Amino acid sequence: MNVSFFGELLQSISDRGRALLDRTRERRVEPAARSESIIDLCEHLLSGRGEASGVALAREILTHYGELTTGPRIAFFEALALRFGPDHARLNTAIEAWRAAPTDETAAEVHVAAEPRRQELFRRLNLAPNGTAALVRMREQLLGVLDRRNDLSAVDADFVHLFSSWFNRGFLVLRRIDWATPAVILEKIIRYEAVHRIRGWDDLRRRIDPRDRRCYAFFHPALVDEPLIFVEVALTQKIPDAIGPILAVQRDTVEVATTATFYSISNCQPGLAGVSFGNFLLKQVIEEICKEMPSLATFVTLSPVPNFAGWLKRERAVEGSRVLTEEDKAALQNLDLDGWWQTPKTRDPVREPLLRAAAYYFLHARNTRNRPADSVARFHLGNGARLEQMNWLADGSQRGIEQSHGLMVNYLYELDAIEKNHEAYAEQRAIVASNTVKKLLRATPREVAIVGK
Amino acid sequence: MNVSFFGELLQSISDRGRALLDRTRERRVEPAARSESIIDLCEHLLSGRGEASGVALAREILTHYGELTTGPRIAFFEALALRFGPDHARLNTAIEAWRAAPTDETAAEVHVAAEPRRQELFRRLNLAPNGTAALVRMREQLLGVLDRRNDLSAVDADFVHLFSSWFNRGFLVLRRIDWATPAVILEKIIRYEAVHRIRGWDDLRRRIDPRDRRCYAFFHPALVDEPLIFVEVALTQKIPDAIGPILAVQRDTVEVATTATFYSISNCQPGLAGVSFGNFLLKQVIEEICKEMPSLATFVTLSPVPNFAGWLKRERAVEGSRVLTEEDKAALQNLDLDGWWQTPKTRDPVREPLLRAAAYYFLHARNTRNRPADSVARFHLGNGARLEQMNWLADGSQRGIEQSHGLMVNYLYELDAIEKNHEAYAEQRAIVASNTVKKLLRATPREVAIVGK
Amino acid sequence: MNVSFFGELLQSISDRGRALLDRTRERRVEPAARSESIIDLCEHLLSGRGEASGVALAREILTHYGELTTGPRIAFFEALALRFGPDHARLNTAIEAWRAAPTDETAAEVHVAAEPRRQELFRRLNLAPNGTAALVRMREQLLGVLDRRNDLSAVDADFVHLFSSWFNRGFLVLRRIDWATPAVILEKIIRYEAVHRIRGWDDLRRRIDPRDRRCYAFFHPALVDEPLIFVEVALTQKIPDAIGPILAVQRDTVEVATTATFYSISNCQPGLAGVSFGNFLLKQVIEEICKEMPSLATFVTLSPVPNFAGWLKRERAVEGSRVLTEEDKAALQNLDLDGWWQTPKTRDPVREPLLRAAAYYFLHARNTRNRPADSVARFHLGNGARLEQMNWLADGSQRGIEQSHGLMVNYLYELDAIEKNHEAYAEQRAIVASNTVKKLLRATPREVAIVGK
Amino acid sequence: MNVSFFGELLQSISDRGRALLDRTRERRVEPAARSESIIDLCEHLLSGRGEASGVALAREILTHYGELTTGPRIAFFEALALRFGPDHARLNTAIEAWRAAPTDETAAEVHVAAEPRRQELFRRLNLAPNGTAALVRMREQLLGVLDRRNDLSAVDADFVHLFSSWFNRGFLVLRRIDWATPAVILEKIIRYEAVHRIRGWDDLRRRIDPRDRRCYAFFHPALVDEPLIFVEVALTQKIPDAIGPILAVQRDTVEVATTATFYSISNCQPGLAGVSFGNFLLKQVIEEICKEMPSLATFVTLSPVPNFAGWLKRERAVEGSRVLTEEDKAALQNLDLDGWWQTPKTRDPVREPLLRAAAYYFLHARNTRNRPADSVARFHLGNGARLEQMNWLADGSQRGIEQSHGLMVNYLYELDAIEKNHEAYAEQRAIVASNTVKKLLRATPREVAIVGK
Repeated sequence: MNVSFFGELLQSISDRGRALLDRTRERRVEPAARSESIIDLCEHLLSGRGEASGVALAREILTHYGELTTGPRIAFFEALALRFGPDHARLNTAIEAWRAAPTDETAAEVHVAAEPRRQELFRRLNLAPNGTAALVRMREQLLGVLDRRNDLSAVDADFVHLFSSWFNRGFLVLRRIDWATPAVILEKIIRYEAVHRIRGWDDLRRRIDPRDRRCYAFFHPALVDEPLIFVEVALTQKIPDAIGPILAVQRDTVEVATTATFYSISNCQPGLAGVSFGNFLLKQVIEEICKEMPSLATFVTLSPVPNFAGWLKRERAVEGSRVLTEEDKAALQNLDLDGWWQTPKTRDPVREPLLRAAAYYFLHARNTRNRPADSVARFHLGNGARLEQMNWLADGSQRGIEQSHGLMVNYLYELDAIEKNHEAYAEQRAIVASNTVKKLLRATPREVAIVGK
Repeated sequence: MNVSFFGELLQSISDRGRALLDRTRERRVEPAARSESIIDLCEHLLSGRGEASGVALAREILTHYGELTTGPRIAFFEALALRFGPDHARLNTAIEAWRAAPTDETAAEVHVAAEPRRQELFRRLNLAPNGTAALVRMREQLLGVLDRRNDLSAVDADFVHLFSSWFNRGFLVLRRIDWATPAVILEKIIRYEAVHRIRGWDDLRRRIDPRDRRCYAFFHPALVDEPLIFVEVALTQKIPDAIGPILAVQRDTVEVATTATFYSISNCQPGLAGVSFGNFLLKQVIEEICKEMPSLATFVTLSPVPNFAGWLKRERAVEGSRVLTEEDKAALQNLDLDGWWQTPKTRDPVREPLLRAAAYYFLHARNTRNRPADSVARFHLGNGARLEQMNWLADGSQRGIEQSHGLMVNYLYELDAIEKNHEAYAEQRAIVASNTVKKLLRATPREVAIVGK
Repeated sequence: MNVSFFGELLQSISDRGRALLDRTRERRVEPAARSESIIDLCEHLLSGRGEASGVALAREILTHYGELTTGPRIAFFEALALRFGPDHARLNTAIEAWRAAPTDETAAEVHVAAEPRRQELFRRLNLAPNGTAALVRMREQLLGVLDRRNDLSAVDADFVHLFSSWFNRGFLVLRRIDWATPAVILEKIIRYEAVHRIRGWDDLRRRIDPRDRRCYAFFHPALVDEPLIFVEVALTQKIPDAIGPILAVQRDTVEVATTATFYSISNCQPGLAGVSFGNFLLKQVIEEICKEMPSLATFVTLSPVPNFAGWLKRERAVEGSRVLTEEDKAALQNLDLDGWWQTPKTRDPVREPLLRAAAYYFLHARNTRNRPADSVARFHLGNGARLEQMNWLADGSQRGIEQSHGLMVNYLYELDAIEKNHEAYAEQRAIVASNTVKKLLRATPREVAIVGK
Repeated sequence: MNVSFFGELLQSISDRGRALLDRTRERRVEPAARSESIIDLCEHLLSGRGEASGVALAREILTHYGELTTGPRIAFFEALALRFGPDHARLNTAIEAWRAAPTDETAAEVHVAAEPRRQELFRRLNLAPNGTAALVRMREQLLGVLDRRNDLSAVDADFVHLFSSWFNRGFLVLRRIDWATPAVILEKIIRYEAVHRIRGWDDLRRRIDPRDRRCYAFFHPALVDEPLIFVEVALTQKIPDAIGPILAVQRDTVEVATTATFYSISNCQPGLAGVSFGNFLLKQVIEEICKEMPSLATFVTLSPVPNFAGWLKRERAVEGSRVLTEEDKAALQNLDLDGWWQTPKTRDPVREPLLRAAAYYFLHARNTRNRPADSVARFHLGNGARLEQMNWLADGSQRGIEQSHGLMVNYLYELDAIEKNHEAYAEQRAIVASNTVKKLLRATPREVAIVGK
C-alpha cells in the first residue's frame, strides 16, 4: 500500500513545529516592551475581534507565558481561575430560562453559559503552532503548584476535559521503537523510563534491538517528537519470576518465545496525567505482537508492587491485626535489618509470612475509595487482567527492596477473559486472581513454600 | 531534517483505516442476529461498564449504524435528541447547589450536568478505528434531514461543538496537491470541486501540474485519504478579470508571475459544515507560496457572486426601487432574453446599470443578519480581504450567467491590511472596498465604461 | 521497522532529478553560442583534465545532445562509433606484451586497451544529474536508426554492456502499483501497457484497485518516475481460458482466490531493450503474493501467441505440409473470411485443425536459432514455466484475431519445477508442456473437442 | 513535491536487506552438508545453466563464503585469481582475428575475451539479496591479505573496476545526518569517524545537533544502513586555526556564520578503497549549505597534515639539507623532548623553523609519483582547493603531535577557482597556495611570527 502521501502529512506538522522552535530561539521580544499584559492578550484572543490574527495572538501569548518566572506564572494561573471561569450573569439568565421551560434547548444554553471561559481560551491557544505541546507543558507547571493551591483545581479540571477529547484514542498512533528509531526519540525513552532505569545508550539498545525484545509507544500528531507512553516487552519462554534475568547484560536470545512479558510501562508527559491511554496501549501492543508472532500464547506483566512495603509497615503496627499473627510480626522484624535478603538466615523466616500478607494485601486491602490499595494493581485489574503469580525476591534493586521488600507480581492478560474480568472489577469490585494466589491466603507455611515460587 | 519517523506515524493511521475498511467489507454480521438494539449498545457504551471493550463496542455501533436504512436512521437521530440529552434530574440538583452557593465549583457541576449525554457518546464512538470519519458521515446524514426536523438541531449543535475542537487548526495539515499526489486523493479533488467543475483527469492535470498552477488542501490525521478543503491557484501577471483564460485548454505558461489568484475554494466534507478552516487555508497557502516565490506581490481571488442574480431579480420587481431607476429596469430587461450576452446589441445596454447595481449590491445589500447579501463576500470580507474589482462578463458558463449574469469579482488579500479590514468588518460591519468599486456607485454611465473593466 | 530514513534517500534522488528538469526548462543556452562541439566536449570529458568540473561537463554534453536534430544526432552516433572505439595503437602494444608473456597481467592490459573509449565516456556522462535517464533515452534513439546503420551496432553493444551492469537485479526495486500510487506513475502505466490497451483512468482503476487485482513494477533508483517493466495480475478461482472476463467492466470480485494469473507484462523502456528483468519480476511477484496470500496455489499466465497466425499462414501455403492435411487446409480456409469467428457455421470447422496445428506450433516449430517460433513462448519457457493449456477463441479483439486467430495460452509457473524446466529448455531445447497439450498433437477431432476447452 | 512514492522504493530495498539478515541468522545450513564446493558453485553460476535459480545460487555462494575461515578464504581468493581469469584460448583466437582484420568488431571480441571471468561472476553474485554489501566485504577481506599476496592484485583490480561503475556518483545520495537520524546510522558515524574520534553519544550530539554544526553522508541504494563517506562541518565566523575550540564541550553557538569549515572527512567502507567520492561529497555539501544559508561566503577545511612529522624527521637527518639550516636543525631538536609544546621555553624556538619547513613541505616536497608528499594535500589540491593557511599548534592531541607536531592547515574551496586550480594541479603539478603560505618560505623569523598565526 503506497500510503506515504499520508505519512508525509505528519512530517509537515513536524517541520512546522521545528520551524517554530527555531524561530522562538531567535526572535526574542523584550517582555517589558509589550504594552499589553498576558491577561489582556487572553481577553483579546477570546473577544473574537481580531480573529483574523488569532494564530499570531495565540503564539504571542504562549511565547509570553513561556518567559514567565514562577511568581507571575502562578499569578497567571490565578487569573485563569478567577477571571476566566463561567460568566455568572449569563449563567443565571440561562438558569432562569431553564426553570421557566426545562427543555433541551434551555439546558444547552445552561451548558454553554456554565462552561468556564478558559476552555474556549485553551482551544484558541491551540491555534498557535505547537500550541498543544505548550498547553501540555502549561498544565504540567500547573500540577506543580496544585498541591498547595486547591483553588486552582478547577483550571486543572478544564485541562483534563480538553485533553481527554484531543488525546482521544482515535487520534493516537502506535509506533514500534527500535534501533532504527531517530535518536531524538530514543533519548526520550532513556529519560522517561520510570520503572527500571535505562543506563545510557548501550542499556537502551539491549532493550529494543535484540530479536526477543520489543518496545512500543503511543504518539499524537500534534506532539512532535514526544512519546506519550511506552511499554517494554521481553519475549520469554515462561512467565518470568524476577526482573534480573530480563535486564541482564549477558544473556541468551530467546529463539522460540511463547510469552510476551510487559516489564515496564512509563508515562512520558506529566502534563497529561489523568488522561489514560495505558489500557489501550497494552491491548494494541498485544494485537501487533500477535500479528507478527501468531505462536505467542501468553501475555503477562512483570510488575512492581509500589505500595506494599508501606502497607505492611502500617499493618505490623496494628494491635491485634486480622492480617498478621504475632508470630508473623516477629518473623517480619527481620525486614528492619540491613541487607536482610542477602543471607538465608535473615531471609528465610520472612518468606512465608510475607507472601501470605501479600496475598491478603492484593485480595483485601483497600484504599479510601474502596479500590485495591496497590496503584499498579488498580491499573491492571481495571484493564481486565488477572493477578496471576507473586514472585518472592524478584527485584533486588534498592528501590525494589524499599517499596515492596523485593516482591513483584505478574498480571495475566487473557484475551477472552479481559471483558469479563473488567466488568467484575468495575461493578463488584472483584479482585480476579489465580487460584495459586488465592490459596496462598490460607495456606500453611509448607504450602506457601511450594506455591510461592 | 530527517523527520520521516514522524511521517510514518500517520501512515500507521492510514494503514489502520484501510485495514478496517477491508474488514468491514468482509465480515458482515447479519443485522437480525444482534440481540441488542443500537440504542442499547449506545447506553452500554456510555455506562462505562465494559470500558475494557469500548473500542469493540464503538466499532459495533458504527457498523450497525452504517447498515441502517433511512427510516431507522432518523429514528436513531430522534433517540439521540430525546434520550441522550442532558440528565434533567442531575441538572436540577446541580442548579440547586449553584443557587445555594454560586461558586465556580457549583458552576462546574452545572456545566457537566447540562452537557447532553450524546457528547460523551460521540467521544466514545470516536474510539473505534475510523471513528472520526464515521461520525463526520453521521452528521452529514443528519444535515440531510435537518431542514424538516428542527427538533434535531440540538444534536447537530453537539456535533459542531466536538468537531470544532477536534478539527482545531492546530491539528490540520496543509499539503500541496500535484501530479505526484496519489490517485486516490486526486479523484476526490475531481469529485469535490464545487466552483468550476473538473472534467476528468486531463482537466485536473491542467490545474495542478503546470508550473504556474498550484493546489493546496487541508488534511486531518484522523480522516484518511480525505481532503477537508482545497484551493486552486493560478500564478498570473496581473489581477485576472475572467475565468476563461485560466481554465483554457491551450494557453502559455506564465514564466514570471507577480500575482497569485485563488480561483476556486471547495469544501469537501459536508459533515464538517460550520467548522470553518477556509480562512486558515488561504493564509497558510499565502505563506507557503511566499516562501517558494518571494517575488509574488499580489494575492487575490477570482470569485463568483452566487447571490447576485437572485437579488437583482427581486430588486427589479420592487416598485420605486432606491437602487434601480426606471431606465435601469428597462435596460435590464434584456437579461430575460436567451443568450443576451452573446451579441453587442442585447449585451451593451445592460453593462452600465448592472455594474452599478452590483456596486450597490456589494456595498449596501444586507441579509437578515445584517451581513452582506453575498455569501462569498461574507467569507472573504470576514477574512479581512478587500473587494478590489468587479469583472463584467467574466464567467460565461451557464452557471455563471444564471447566478450572477456573468459577473465575477476579485477580493484582495493585502497582508498588512487583513487584520484592520477584519476588525472593521467584524465590529462596524464595514465593507472594505477599493475606490474603483466605490466610485462606481455614483458614476455616470461613461465613467462606468472606463472603470468597469 | 522504522526504515523511513532509507526511504528518504531515494526521495533525494527524485528531488534532484526534478530540480534538474526544471532547470533545463529554464536555462537555455543558444547552441550556436557554444565554442566547442559536442565531440570536443566529449574528448574534454574523457581527457580527465577538468575532472573537477566533470559533473558540469557531463551535464552540458547531455543538454547539448538533447537539442540535436536527427541529422546531427546520427552524426554524433557515427562519431561514437568511429572516434570513441578502442585505441588501436594501445591495443597492439598490449597484444605484443601478451604474446611475449601470456599472463593475467598482460591479459588485463589487453582487456583495458580493447575497451571502446565510449564505455568510459558513458560512465562519465552518468555523473550528470539524471545522467542515467539521458543515456537510456540516447540508446532508444540509437535503436531507432540501428536497422539501417549496421555500423553503429558496436555502440549499441556498449550500451547493453553498461546497462546490464547498472540495472543488475540487485539494484532493482519491486513496487506495488495501486490506486494510492502517484498519478505521475499511473499515467505511465496507462501509456506503456503493451498487451491489452488501457482505455483511460477508469479502465486503469479496474485493473489495480479491486481486491482481486494486483499490479507490480520494477523501478531503478536512478530512473526517477519511470517503471522499467510491470505485470498485471488477476486473482481467480481457476486457470482462466479467456481474456474478456478479466477485463470486463462489470464483474464480481473474487473473494477466495486460488490462482494468480499474470495476464499482461509490459516493458516500459525501449532504451533498455535486451536488458532482461522479466524473469526476475515474475519470480519476485510470486514471492510477494505468496507472502500476502499463502492460500494461493497456482501461478499461471494468460498469454498471447503473437507469431501463430503468421506461422500458420506460411504453413497453409506449404505443399505437402507435414503439419496440415489437405482436409485441415480446406477447413482453415474459413480463417480468410471476415468475422469467421462470429458464427458457428464458419467457426466450428476451424476449431479442431487449428488447435492441433497450434500444438504442433508450440511443440515443434522453431526459429532460425532453433528456439521456439513463438516469442512469448521463448520468454516463459526460458523462465522455467510449462505450457499448460491452449484456449480457443480466448481473445476476440482485433489484434487477438489478427495475430493468433483468437488463441491464447497459459504458462504455468510451478515453483518446484522451474529450475528443472529451465535446465531442460536451456540444455536440451526441451519444450515442457502439459500432457493435455501433448496429446492434442495426435488427438482425434473428438478428443480435441474435449481437451481443447 | 509529493515524492514519497519514490522514497519508499529504497525502503523496500532496506526491508529486503533486513529480511535477509534475519533469515541468515535463522537458517543455518551445515557447511559439511553441502555436496558442492564454493568453487563448483561459482562455476555453476557462471555456466548460465540454472540461470532460473541464479538468485538462489548467488545467495548460497555468499552465505558459504561468509562462513569461510581465514585459510579457506585465501584459497578462495587464489581460485578467483587462477581459475577465474580470462579464457586464454578464447583470447588467443580473438587476437588472431584482430590481427587478421583489426576492426572495432574484432577488437570488441578481444575485449570480451580478455575480461577476467570473475567480473561476470561478481555481477552474478550481485543478484543475491544484499549481494553488493557482501561483495564490498569480500573485497575488504581481500585487501587484508593483499600486502603479502601480490598475486591477488588482479582480483582487486576487477573489484575496483566494477565498484567504480556501480558506485558512480550518479547513484549516490547525499543525506544530512542529525539528531533525528536513526540510531543504527548514528552508531556507525561514531564508529567510522577517522580523524577526530567521537567519544560516545554525547560527543556525537555535540557534532550534529547544534545549529552551527552539520554532518552529511553519501549513501548508495544497495548498501542498506551504511554511510559510504561523511563530512563534519562547523559553521564559524572566521577561518579556524585550531581544532580544540570546535570540539569543545562548552562553547557558544555561532548565530551568524560566514564560514563553513569541513573539519573531518571519513571514509566508511574499507572495501571501497580506491573508489573516490570525496570530491563529489564536498562539492555537493557546499551546494546544500549554500541553498540553506546564502550568506555563507567561505568554505574551508581544517585539516591534519599526516605525513609531515615523518618527512621532517627524515629531512633533519639529511646532511647538508637544502631545506633546513644547521640552525634550524638545532632548534628542531626540541621536538624530541617529551611535552615540548607545553612550555614556552621548549616551544618558542621551534615555531619559526617548523613553519618554514612546513611551507617547504607543502610547496616542494614530492612523493615518488611526483605528487605532494602529504596525502591530505593531494586530496584537497586534486579537488581544486587552495592551501590557505598553516596553523601552529592547532591540534594538541597525541595523534596531532605525533603526526604533524601539532600543525594543521586550511584548504580553501573558492567556487570560482576550483576548476582552474584543479587543472593547474593536474596538468602542471602546480601547488596552489595563498601568498601568506608562499611568503613564509623565504620569510625572516620576524615575518613568520606575524603571518604564521
